[in-house]
Amino acid sequence: MKKVVTIGGGTGSFTVLSGLKRYPLDLTAIVTMADDGGSTGILRDEFGVLPPGDLRQCLVALSDADMVMRKLFTHRYTTSDLAGHNFGNLFISTLEQVTGSLDTALDLCGDILKIRGRVVPVTLSKTQLVTELKNGKVLHGETELGDYQLVSKFGIKKMRLPPKSKPNPKALKAIHEADVIIVGPGDLYTSLIPNFLVSGIANAFIKSRAKKVYIANLMNRHGHTDDFTTLDHVRALETTIGKKNIFDVIVYNTKKPPQALVRKYADEGEPVDSGLNVRGHGYKIIGANLLADGIAKTTKKDSVRRTLIRHDADKLARIISRL
Amino acid sequence: MKKVVTIGGGTGSFTVLSGLKRYPLDLTAIVTMADDGGSTGILRDEFGVLPPGDLRQCLVALSDADMVMRKLFTHRYTTSDLAGHNFGNLFISTLEQVTGSLDTALDLCGDILKIRGRVVPVTLSKTQLVTELKNGKVLHGETELGDYQLVSKFGIKKMRLPPKSKPNPKALKAIHEADVIIVGPGDLYTSLIPNFLVSGIANAFIKSRAKKVYIANLMNRHGHTDDFTTLDHVRALETTIGKKNIFDVIVYNTKKPPQALVRKYADEGEPVDSGLNVRGHGYKIIGANLLADGIAKTTKKDSVRRTLIRHDADKLARIISRL
Repeated sequence: MKKVVTIGGGTGSFTVLSGLKRYPLDLTAIVTMADDGGSTGILRDEFGVLPPGDLRQCLVALSDADMVMRKLFTHRYTTSDLAGHNFGNLFISTLEQVTGSLDTALDLCGDILKIRGRVVPVTLSKTQLVTELKNGKVLHGETELGDYQLVSKFGIKKMRLPPKSKPNPKALKAIHEADVIIVGPGDLYTSLIPNFLVSGIANAFIKSRAKKVYIANLMNRHGHTDDFTTLDHVRALETTIGKKNIFDVIVYNTKKPPQALVRKYADEGEPVDSGLNVRGHGYKIIGANLLADGIAKTTKKDSVRRTLIRHDADKLARIISRL
Repeated sequence: MKKVVTIGGGTGSFTVLSGLKRYPLDLTAIVTMADDGGSTGILRDEFGVLPPGDLRQCLVALSDADMVMRKLFTHRYTTSDLAGHNFGNLFISTLEQVTGSLDTALDLCGDILKIRGRVVPVTLSKTQLVTELKNGKVLHGETELGDYQLVSKFGIKKMRLPPKSKPNPKALKAIHEADVIIVGPGDLYTSLIPNFLVSGIANAFIKSRAKKVYIANLMNRHGHTDDFTTLDHVRALETTIGKKNIFDVIVYNTKKPPQALVRKYADEGEPVDSGLNVRGHGYKIIGANLLADGIAKTTKKDSVRRTLIRHDADKLARIISRL
C-alpha cells in the first residue's frame, strides 16, 4: 500500500484526509501543534496539555465510526459554563491528563473513532509560535498573529518556535518512509509553516525520497498573504524549509468561485491567483476544478449559515490518487 | 444463561455489578433516575438532560475495556471552569444532546466501554423526587432530602415521583424475564425506593417470577435510617412496593467493621444491625463475611485518603452466584 503523508492542520488537512480515506492508502497526518486559540487555547492554559484542536479535526476526517461519534467529536457547547468548549478537544485533553501521554490518548481516540491511518503531532513539546514583524515587534502565539491589521501594516519578517521543540520520532519516520507527502491546503503561517519550524522536520522533508506535492489554497488570508500567488506561497514555504524547488508537483484549482461568494469573503481575503503561467518555475503543475459546491456552515461569529469557498474532498482525492 | 437484574444506583450497584460481571450471567442494571446533586445536578440544570451519574457508575462497573477508559469515565475535573464536572457524566450527557436520545447514548457508551450486560434507566421521564416530612414540609429533589438535620428532626412520611414518570419498557421487560432480581445495597431513600416509585415498576416486580434478593446495607445513613435494622429496611421497601414478604432471600454481612473505622463514620451513620434473629419473619437469610478489606478513596470533602466500609465485590458475587 502506498504511504501517503499529509503535513498541515485544521480544515485543509480535514478535507484532504476525508477524501483520501476512501482509497486503499496507508495514511499519516502530521499535524501542527502551535495552535493556542479558542477552545484549544483554554485547554492549553487551564490543563497544561498539548493543543488538541487540529489533531481532533484529522481524527474525525479519518474516522470510519458512526456518524454520531463524528458529530460528538465536533460538538461545540453553546450554553452553560462549558460554552465555547468542543467535546472532541475535551476528550483528547482529558485522556492526555488521565494517561499522562498525548501519544497514548491519540491511540485510544483512534480506536474509538475507528480511524483509517494515524494522526501524528509534529512535536510533543509545548511550543509557542514567535513571529517577528518587519518593524521589530514580536508576536507571541497564533492568537497575536491573528491581529491582521497589525500584521498587514508591518509584514512578517521571520517566524520561529522555541529551539527546544523536538520533532516527534513518529513524524520523522513517516516522512522518511513516505511515497507521497502532501503539504496544504492550509493557512501559510498558522497551519503549514509551523510544522517545518520544528527542528529536524524540514531536513527530513528535504531528504525524503517521497514525491512532494503542494496543494494550493483557494483563498488568501487578509493581513497574512494578501496578493500572494500560488508561487508566492510555495516560495515562502521553501524559504522556511531551506531548499528551493523542493516540491515536485503543485495542484491548484482552476474554477473561479462565484463572485457573490467572493464578495462575502472580502473581509477575510481574496482568491489566490495561481500565478503559474510564469515560465521556468520548474514545477509540474496540475490544474483542475477542485471547488466544492454548496458547503454551508453556521459560523461562530454571526450564527448565520453561509456557503463556504472550500475544496471538494473527493475531487482533491481523485487527483492525489493518480499521482 | 441466567438472567440477573439489579435494581438500585450509585456505589451499591457498582459493587454488585463489578463482582457479577466475572460470572457467565446475562446482566441488566436498572438504575434510578432521581439524582439531582453534584455534577449530575449541574448537567440536568444546564443541559436539560436526564441524570447521568448513576448510569455512569453502572457502565464502568460492567466495563471490560482498558483500565484507562474506566479511569477516563470516572475522571473528575479539579481545576478550571470544568471543576466539579465528571468526564463520564459529560460524555453521556453530551451524547444524549447530540443524539437526542439517552437510550442511543447508552448503547454507544456501552460499546465504547465494552460492557458485559446492559444499563437501563428505570424511566426516561424527567423526574424529581418529592418527599413529605411528618410535619407536613415538602422537600423537592434528592439534594433537599440530603438535609439530614431537617429529615431526622421530623422524619419521612411519604415519597413520590411525578405521576407522569413512565417506566422504561426495557426495565419492565428485564424485570419480567429475570431469573434473579437483586435490590440493594444502596441508600434506601435515594437509590432504592425511587426505582419503585416509577409507575408500573413495583407491579412488575411483584408479578415477576424471579427470585427476589435483598442485599443489606452495611451502614445506616444519618438522618435517613438511624437505628434501622435490616428488617426495617426490607419493610420500608416492601411498603413502597405494596406487598409484604415479596423478597425471597436476604443477604447480610456478619463481620463487624473495625471500631476505629466505625468511629470515623460516626458523622454519616452507624453500622446496620441485621435484626434477623426475630422469629417468624419468613425470609430465607444468608449471612456471610461480605466486608471489603482496605478499600481507600480520596474524598471530595476533605481531600484526605481514607479507608471505606464497603462490600467486597467478589465475596458478594460468590454468594449471589450460588442462588
